[in-house]
Amino acid sequence: MGDMDNIFNKRQSILIANVMVDGKPADIFVNDGGTLAAVGEGVRGQYKGEADLVIDGDEAIALPGLANTHTHAAMSLLRGYADDMILQDWLSQKIWPLEAHLTGSDVYWGTRLACLEMIRTGTTAFNDMYFMMDEAVRAVDESGIRAVLSYGFIDLFNAEKREAECKATEKLAFQIRSMNNPRIKAAAGPHAIYTVSPEGLTWCAEFAKEQKIAIHIHLSETEKEINDCIAQHGKRPAALLDDCGILTPNTIAAHCCWLDDAECALLGKRGVSVSHNPASNMKLATNRAMPVRQLMAAGANTCLGTDGCASNNNLDMFEEMKTAALLQKFFWNDPTVLPAPAALAMATSNGAKALGFGTGTLTVGAPADIVLISVSTACNIPLHNVTSNLVYSCSGSAVETTICDGRVLMLNREIPGEDEILTGAAQAARELVSRSQSA
Amino acid sequence: MGDMDNIFNKRQSILIANVMVDGKPADIFVNDGGTLAAVGEGVRGQYKGEADLVIDGDEAIALPGLANTHTHAAMSLLRGYADDMILQDWLSQKIWPLEAHLTGSDVYWGTRLACLEMIRTGTTAFNDMYFMMDEAVRAVDESGIRAVLSYGFIDLFNAEKREAECKATEKLAFQIRSMNNPRIKAAAGPHAIYTVSPEGLTWCAEFAKEQKIAIHIHLSETEKEINDCIAQHGKRPAALLDDCGILTPNTIAAHCCWLDDAECALLGKRGVSVSHNPASNMKLATNRAMPVRQLMAAGANTCLGTDGCASNNNLDMFEEMKTAALLQKFFWNDPTVLPAPAALAMATSNGAKALGFGTGTLTVGAPADIVLISVSTACNIPLHNVTSNLVYSCSGSAVETTICDGRVLMLNREIPGEDEILTGAAQAARELVSRSQSA
Repeated sequence: MGDMDNIFNKRQSILIANVMVDGKPADIFVNDGGTLAAVGEGVRGQYKGEADLVIDGDEAIALPGLANTHTHAAMSLLRGYADDMILQDWLSQKIWPLEAHLTGSDVYWGTRLACLEMIRTGTTAFNDMYFMMDEAVRAVDESGIRAVLSYGFIDLFNAEKREAECKATEKLAFQIRSMNNPRIKAAAGPHAIYTVSPEGLTWCAEFAKEQKIAIHIHLSETEKEINDCIAQHGKRPAALLDDCGILTPNTIAAHCCWLDDAECALLGKRGVSVSHNPASNMKLATNRAMPVRQLMAAGANTCLGTDGCASNNNLDMFEEMKTAALLQKFFWNDPTVLPAPAALAMATSNGAKALGFGTGTLTVGAPADIVLISVSTACNIPLHNVTSNLVYSCSGSAVETTICDGRVLMLNREIPGEDEILTGAAQAARELVSRSQSA
Repeated sequence: MGDMDNIFNKRQSILIANVMVDGKPADIFVNDGGTLAAVGEGVRGQYKGEADLVIDGDEAIALPGLANTHTHAAMSLLRGYADDMILQDWLSQKIWPLEAHLTGSDVYWGTRLACLEMIRTGTTAFNDMYFMMDEAVRAVDESGIRAVLSYGFIDLFNAEKREAECKATEKLAFQIRSMNNPRIKAAAGPHAIYTVSPEGLTWCAEFAKEQKIAIHIHLSETEKEINDCIAQHGKRPAALLDDCGILTPNTIAAHCCWLDDAECALLGKRGVSVSHNPASNMKLATNRAMPVRQLMAAGANTCLGTDGCASNNNLDMFEEMKTAALLQKFFWNDPTVLPAPAALAMATSNGAKALGFGTGTLTVGAPADIVLISVSTACNIPLHNVTSNLVYSCSGSAVETTICDGRVLMLNREIPGEDEILTGAAQAARELVSRSQSA
């Protein structure tokens, strides 16, 4: 590519000529403020002289960048470290002991690797929860994509630990605010009702409200969580969260497998975003699928997420769209549940709305988060139905070009610096395992 | 690539240097008879001078070519034509009316497209059932991969129609025998118990036995099939098939969602191969997953298949391995069911055995059906566990090189003639829809 490197990762005006938008031939003009200034037929004629960069779309399908609304990005370093185990054994014997040896540098490399994989597979924004988040912030900043970052707040019902978790949550929020980078937002990250006290949950809700930031939480992933909650609190998890002020239009609740109808109604009423994580739920055998149809009917904002790489084991949102559509049909025993257009909306417009990054549509005035998907590849031949192919036939490998916030991050499958990231992450993972084995 | 085209699609001796076999560094030497002559460390030193072609594996993971044990290859032309519908509506309103307009040329282009997609995603052998199979034979012959091809025998309980189906089955078997191409085998293809009379089933069983060919059938995909069978015959489907002589060690039964324990035991006792088709079963909402664990315990040969593109909608066996492992865990509510090594065995050694194409292993004397999977890609970083990454993290897009029967079909992602196949298939699909709409 040579001096083509100059075109990456910077703001410039971009004309994307000869693509398909919403099934119709179109061109897209992105201004140097990172905004879609024009979309439609004939745009290339009008804006050709004005563009710093012209990309020949070659009839590619243009989509808004996908939004991954629940992950633990740095866990990409644990990809394949342990699988096929009972949840509790998997966590206590494998995942937690390895995580005990994680350093800030590991979190940096794991998050870089995750961002790289997301750029390659067309995701331009994600919702993260982990620890040593200052290093995740650095990785996201350098990667060029968008993220909502939360520190995983776990007080284990202990007042002293709670104090420390509040401080860590505040520190991350203030660090991110001071950066003033519109691609990076903080969230409060109360982990779950079984790891955070009601006092901790309430503190998170109040802090998020005061700081005008989002809340990211795990909700009703397993049946045990429900049964324990009823035994301990005399109510189901969503009601407990509502008592603590957690359910808001800025809240993203991940998993939500075991919600009953009243909980779906409550989440809808509060305008909560729910993140469906079908691959993780299947792999860890949650025994129930998110009631997507009921949540949609109740008015909740239904989104998609991959969960972390330890329980998926990749970050490909195209794969996740398909898995979601298949799992919903299978579990609810109805092939009409979650048709392709609804799965695509979960991964695009609904996800962008949940994360507060624009509309997740390719419309004038939207942020320039754009991915181009090849039509010269078997997964898009024939092209009877673009949306069907995107959801059921293609994987993220069909993505050729990724633009985020008006910056080109991948062009014709080239990502500058990819080898260094792969090498750095592989080395970090090797050393992590080696430290854990010699401990 | 220029004169590199000379290396494709012909028998030659090949040294594949610097790969990983079963987790260990190794080289592979393929003799010009299409057989693995040497595998292990140091092979490159020993065979370098003898090889017509040297491939630098660059530490890639070498795997036996994957075997797709149930598909309808030509249905790739229907990819995305109709989704998200109730099975009966989907078939009667969309699929069958379009299939009514299929020509031999369509079957050729659909099968070429399917073979191309399989080569690209690491599949070197498949088990097909469709019609106008002389055109499928031609497509497979030209594509360079292996297939067991069956005419879909459907007599609809009508003696006259049965006569025609017997003739079509005989014609295909004799055509394939006369070609004397070891990559292509015939099978008898009685469609299912609800489309073929007991007389037709019995004829297929006898013909297969007499001709020493395989049997390919759909079995117990839906609950309705079971209920109707019991109502009509007073027994479950496997018992009915056994009465007709269909259950043999050369039989591949697809789907098998609704088998009970006695049927699993019977299939195991008869040495039947069962093809699990998880994506199709989820998409069409069969409401039960194949009892893989029971079938393994009973001694059945458990394999994997994608089903046709109308109900999947791709032919990526890597995706199918993951979907199988996830569905098994989820449906049987146990994350230890179908661990990664078992899923990989279903797609490789078990599949090769089912199709009668060698052992599906990279061992001396095995047929040279080899795929190389890149380790310089995010899905294989880190590489804590090769098998886990292959099953849970990678899609078929990680495959770089595909060799079948000692012939290079894809090298570093290049497949000669790919554009012509994509163009031909796209045009055939467009014209098919246009014929059906003007009818």
